[in-house]
This record gives sequence, C-alpha cells and structure tokens, in this order.
Amino acid sequence: MTKLRGKAIVAQSGGPTAVINSSACGVIQTALGNPDVFTGVYGALNGILGVLDEDLMDLAKEDPGEIDRLRRSPSAALGSCRHKLKDLQKDRTDYERILGVFRAHDIRYFFYIGGNDSMDTAAKLGQLAREIDYEMIAVGVPKTIDNDLAFTDHCPGYGSVAKFTAASVMEAGRDTESLYTHDTCTVQEIMGRNAGWIAAAAGLARRSEEDAPHIILLPEVPFVIEKFIAQVQHSLKKYKRCFIACGEGVKTPDGRYLGEAGGSFATDAFGHAQLGGASDAVRAIIETKVGVKCRTNRAGTAQRNAMHFASATDVAEAYLVGAAAVEAALEGVNGKMITLVREGNGSDYRCTTGLAELEDVANGEKMLPAEFIGSDGISVTDAFRDYARPLLAGQAEVEIADDGLPVYARLAKHMVAKRTESR
Amino acid sequence: MTKLRGKAIVAQSGGPTAVINSSACGVIQTALGNPDVFTGVYGALNGILGVLDEDLMDLAKEDPGEIDRLRRSPSAALGSCRHKLKDLQKDRTDYERILGVFRAHDIRYFFYIGGNDSMDTAAKLGQLAREIDYEMIAVGVPKTIDNDLAFTDHCPGYGSVAKFTAASVMEAGRDTESLYTHDTCTVQEIMGRNAGWIAAAAGLARRSEEDAPHIILLPEVPFVIEKFIAQVQHSLKKYKRCFIACGEGVKTPDGRYLGEAGGSFATDAFGHAQLGGASDAVRAIIETKVGVKCRTNRAGTAQRNAMHFASATDVAEAYLVGAAAVEAALEGVNGKMITLVREGNGSDYRCTTGLAELEDVANGEKMLPAEFIGSDGISVTDAFRDYARPLLAGQAEVEIADDGLPVYARLAKHMVAKRTESR
Repeated sequence: MTKLRGKAIVAQSGGPTAVINSSACGVIQTALGNPDVFTGVYGALNGILGVLDEDLMDLAKEDPGEIDRLRRSPSAALGSCRHKLKDLQKDRTDYERILGVFRAHDIRYFFYIGGNDSMDTAAKLGQLAREIDYEMIAVGVPKTIDNDLAFTDHCPGYGSVAKFTAASVMEAGRDTESLYTHDTCTVQEIMGRNAGWIAAAAGLARRSEEDAPHIILLPEVPFVIEKFIAQVQHSLKKYKRCFIACGEGVKTPDGRYLGEAGGSFATDAFGHAQLGGASDAVRAIIETKVGVKCRTNRAGTAQRNAMHFASATDVAEAYLVGAAAVEAALEGVNGKMITLVREGNGSDYRCTTGLAELEDVANGEKMLPAEFIGSDGISVTDAFRDYARPLLAGQAEVEIADDGLPVYARLAKHMVAKRTESR
Repeated sequence: MTKLRGKAIVAQSGGPTAVINSSACGVIQTALGNPDVFTGVYGALNGILGVLDEDLMDLAKEDPGEIDRLRRSPSAALGSCRHKLKDLQKDRTDYERILGVFRAHDIRYFFYIGGNDSMDTAAKLGQLAREIDYEMIAVGVPKTIDNDLAFTDHCPGYGSVAKFTAASVMEAGRDTESLYTHDTCTVQEIMGRNAGWIAAAAGLARRSEEDAPHIILLPEVPFVIEKFIAQVQHSLKKYKRCFIACGEGVKTPDGRYLGEAGGSFATDAFGHAQLGGASDAVRAIIETKVGVKCRTNRAGTAQRNAMHFASATDVAEAYLVGAAAVEAALEGVNGKMITLVREGNGSDYRCTTGLAELEDVANGEKMLPAEFIGSDGISVTDAFRDYARPLLAGQAEVEIADDGLPVYARLAKHMVAKRTESR
C-alpha cells in the first residue's frame, strides 16, 4: 500500500485543559518528523471554526523551541471553540465546506483533539469524505477534564485537574479547620457538568477522617435537602466544621441543576431567585437551614488550566496520545480515537494506547460508576482511590522565570494564504 | 540584667496564609532551642480565644519532625480566630483574664503572629502587664496576605498569595484567550478587602500587552461604571477578549463595596438585588451593558493557603521573622513587632529584620501607593513590578506523597491541664 501523502492539520476543541497543548505538541512534533508523508503541518485557529473560515496556520514556521514549550503550557494554544456543527443528515453545508478547505490545501490528515462532540465531527467528516471519494484520514485525540469519554480508561486533562483540585481542597480545608470558630463551613465548587469525576478527586485530599472534604456532592447522586442538612449537622458535631466539595452539576431528585433550582431554595432563603452556581445554593441552605456561616470557593477556569501543579503522568500521557494518533495514521488507521489503556495499578501502573471507533466514542458517556461512590453517597471508595491515584502522580515540569512565575508558550501563528472564497 | 525566665506562648490570629505556620515554626524551634530561658513552649488554641479559654497546648511534646513540617504547611496549625477584644479603656475583663492565665502558667513571653488587630492586642496586654507589675515580654510577628501593615517593607504571606494569584490569572487568562469566541470575558475576584496589593500582583502575569489581566480593579481606585464599560469595550476591540482582575474590596465613588452596591447595578440588570461579591457585580455589568458572556473565578480561601505554589522567599522570610521575634525577646526587646527591611532590589534583593512599636503598627495601614498604580487606574507600574517581583521568587519546597498530593503537618495538640476556673 502506498502511503497517502498530503498535509496534516491539527485542531483543538472545547474547554481547555492543562495538557491539551501537550497533546498538540505530540501531534505536531511527530508529524514534523515525517516530512515524507506530511507535506505540511497546519493548525486550525479556534478548532473547527478555523477550518470553516479557512484560518489556518503553518506550524512548520513556528520556532521549534516554542512548539516544544507547548508540552508544558496550559490551555489551547491553537485556539479552541464551542462551535457545534449542524446535523449531517439535515444540512451538509458545514461538512462540505470543511472538505472543500481540506481539498484546496491538500489536507489529507485530520487530527482532532477534543471530547465527544469533536469525535462526532471527525467521524462524520470521514463518512462524507468516503461518500465524495476524498481520500483522507481522521484520527481523534481524547481530551477532557471531565473524564467522561467512553472506551478510554481515563482522559488526558483529568489527572491534572484532579491533582490541583485535591490539593486546593486540602489547602482550603486547612483554612476552615483553623478558623472554624468564625468560618464554620466552606463549599468549594468543582467543575464537571454531567459526571462527578473531578468532584470525586477532591476525596483524595482526605487522608484521615477529619480532613476535608467531609461531604462530596456528586452529579450522580440526587441532592436531597433534608438528608444534606443532617449530613452537615453530623459533620459539625463531629469535627466542629464542614467542608463540602460540590460538583457544579449536582442535581435535585427531579433532575434540575442545583444552581438553577435555586428558585426553590433561595427564594425561600432570601426572598428572591438565586443566580450563580451550585455552591451558592448550598451556601444559602447552610446559612438559613443550619444557621452557620458558609464561605464559597469557585476557582472556575483557573482549575482546568493549573499547569503550575499539573500531574507529570497526565502531561506525559497527553503527549503520548498525540504522538500515537500520528503514528496510527502513518499505519493507515482511520476513523478511530486513541485511547489510554491501563496496565497494572498502584506502583505497577503503566499505560499504553489503544484504539476505539470515533462513532462509538461520540455516542458514549462514562459516568462515575457506582462502585466508586461510597454507600453514604457523599464519599468515594478505595476502588476509586486506586483508580485515580496513579493519574495524579508526579510533578509536571514547568519553566519558571526569575520573577517566580511560569513561562508559557504562545504561537506566532503564521497564517496560510487563503485559497477559497469565504463561506 | 538577669534574663526573665518563664514559659513562652505562641498564638496565630486572623485569616490563615500559606506561611503563617512557617513563622510559628521559627518561633517554636528557636524557643525550644533556648531551654535555659524558656521553661516551656506553649501554643494557644485558636489565637487569643485559646488563652481566654485556657486551651493551651504543650508544643515541646509534639513530634519535632511535625514541628519542622510546619515550615512548609499552609494555614494556622495552632488554630486561629477573628475574636476582637473589648476596648481596654472600657472593659479590662478580657485583658485581665489573659494575664491571669499567663500568671497561672508562668507564661512570660508572648509571641503573637497576626495583623493590626493582633498587634493592638499585644500592645495593650503589655500596657496592662506593666500597670499591674506582671513582668512579661510581648513581641509581634507580622502576618497578612493583604500586605497592608505599616513599618514593614512587606508582610509574610503576601509573596505567596501574590505568586499563586499571578500564576492563576496567567493560566485562566490563557483559557479566555483560547475560547474568546465563546467565553469573551472573565472576571477573577481577588482577596484584599481594603488594599489592592494582591489584585495588583495579578498584574505581574502580564508580561506582554495581550496577556491577562487587561484590567485591574483596585480598591484604591473608585469604580466608575461608564469608564469601566469603555475600558472593557477597548479591550474587546484590541484583543477580542477582556480579562479582569477584580479586587474584592473595589468600591463605588460613594464608598460602597461593589458587591454590596449590587443593588443599583444588578437590580438594574436582573430585576432583583445582587448577592455575592464584586465579581458578580462586574459580570452583571458586562453581560447587560457590554452584552458579551462573562465568567467569574473566585478561588476564595484556596488562594491564601496555596502552599503548593508558594514563594520560597516568602517561606524563608516568614520563618525568619518568627525566629527573630524570639531572638529579640532573648535580648530583652519588648512591645515591638519584627519588620522586614529590604536591602537592594532585583537580583540584589536581600531582606533583614527590624523593629517597630506594636502601637504604631496597630494604628497604621499601608494602602497601595499612587506610584504603584498606572495612570489609567487599571494597571500597575514598573515601580510596583520592581517592588513585588523578588517577593514571589523561588519555588517553596513541599513534601509530595506517592499519590501526587502534598503532605501537610497536623499537630497532635497535647493540651495542658487547666489551672484556672473557666471564665
């Protein structure tokens, strides 16, 4: 079989992570190392939007040192997006436009770093390409802090957000511990809209019983207000304080997000509808129904980009899946996503890569399984700890300048001359 | 002069910091090293509350390894409090109770680690002790993330919160940079109720013009809504995004906190009174008056305890002031607070200790000076950068376990038998 020659393009999609650039670095460096196959290595500005708008950059023109620095730089250096393509069955315009841009630049390899939606996009592009006989290879690279992609043991990005979150809960937990006579409760809101993987990781901060978090609120466990109040009171009685790790996606038994459901809790509490997130609702409940002061912490986007305390394991694996995507493509693999395959656990933990169908990944979602959730519904099990611990291991190297702050990459973004009419 | 012999007591007060335990470690280790003078080394549980309640712990009984680990453990391991003593002129009860407890245990040395209020307490205790002829020595150890104590170049705790804040703004700034087509603005709320020192430190994240933060809102600069809207629009035009570092203590021209003033902004915006802090008010303004999506980040108590990315300079200086307090007391110094004295700047930065009157510190407050604030009111000057940079330098060592998470000290707290009736 003669290898398909042509340009490669890499794009990043969805919410940034600490290590999505490490994956991009793996793709770019491996592709640049195979000039016999890849006649160019392009990046799409802001994910699939950049392809639609033909905003392409020539990554071969970047300073190789800056490309290498991507390995230890957070967020999406190529730019990301949250653009959802139309349904291929109903409207092929976007997909045809993308393939039109690919054809105009002889782009034959598409490496898409993202979550479910991105895998769906890549799968459908491949499908249309086959239909119209445009020879191309699409390989997906998994990325999501949410850790909810199916067919992969875990997702690059998760280990680092888990590590930062657990350390942060550990540290803020010590704050509540020292000031319980004044600030008795603290709620820390943790990302994860549908799955509780990151909130669960906060549980790793709890090495001894009195450590924070005393209560973990997971999206997988319906929030029952009376039960919660009793749990807080129990913690106050036992530890004189209560630290709550609160998943942003926590829902009431009727399936509403706690933040939105605020209407019922907070109208009650303050006489007006509640804005804000789950942590604000939880605080309102504690202050009005339990009657103690409650603080809220919500690191927001800072948590998913915390490269300054990222997991070395995560950074290495993120690079690995990027490099593996290119290597798989070189072997003719098409329409697949690279997966992480765990071999051994604890100090025996090792990780290799595997493959899954893009379509399968697109349609799957991996919630926190029941055996990882404590029987009280507000803690994690040893099985979860065993699963999660190796993913946080090791301190990722970060370049620190004389001013004590990190040095992160920024690409020069050498834009490629357009060859098509604007859409 | 014969040296005063007796027990030493150390207490921690106010909001925890990443390094208040480093100072405690400096006090404890230096005091334990001088058993000829200090017949015992006690700690007060939860600051001055522990003295009032005679909740004292014998620190000599702690594992020396755990005492040493305090040097790199955040928050207040002895426990802290926000208890304000009554005015000595009006009600001497509390002060007499404290001296009664000191006398019962032959406590002759009082080392109080805290801010203005703590220095006030220590000063007044000393004053009353002289009046009633109870021989004792009180020395203050500066601590506050707010960096607003007078007579000291800077305060232990500031360098670390500044370092974490700047890194976090740098990282979240990259998030906004990559996702500007969706999440166009981000407001990160930063601690500092009265002074803008920490918010200013976010400015260190901005190495090039397009870096975050594009706007710094300082408590020292009145917030004028029309001006702010124009500044956001300018940033959107220039960078397609806007990242705002927002001091929690930002005030309107009539002196109300922005969070409280929400009434006017947010009733306007959402038809109901605004809860929450300054960042919620700023988000409401951006979403309704500028018309773009705005995220809010608020690390809360996690920011002031972020030992996982603390400044090595800060940790060393925090230990230094603790040790210096004991050494000063050994030389008969009384009624003073240890200060940090800067000698040289930039790569020549060195720091020694000095002394200030407790009373002077108690009555002073150091706002961000005008020469540190840019002429636009939303940036910091090179003079500030020169001042702040050395304080963030170096990575503090933290013990990391196999699970990738820090190991922080927790004292066993061997409580001392009570010798007085409860108050």
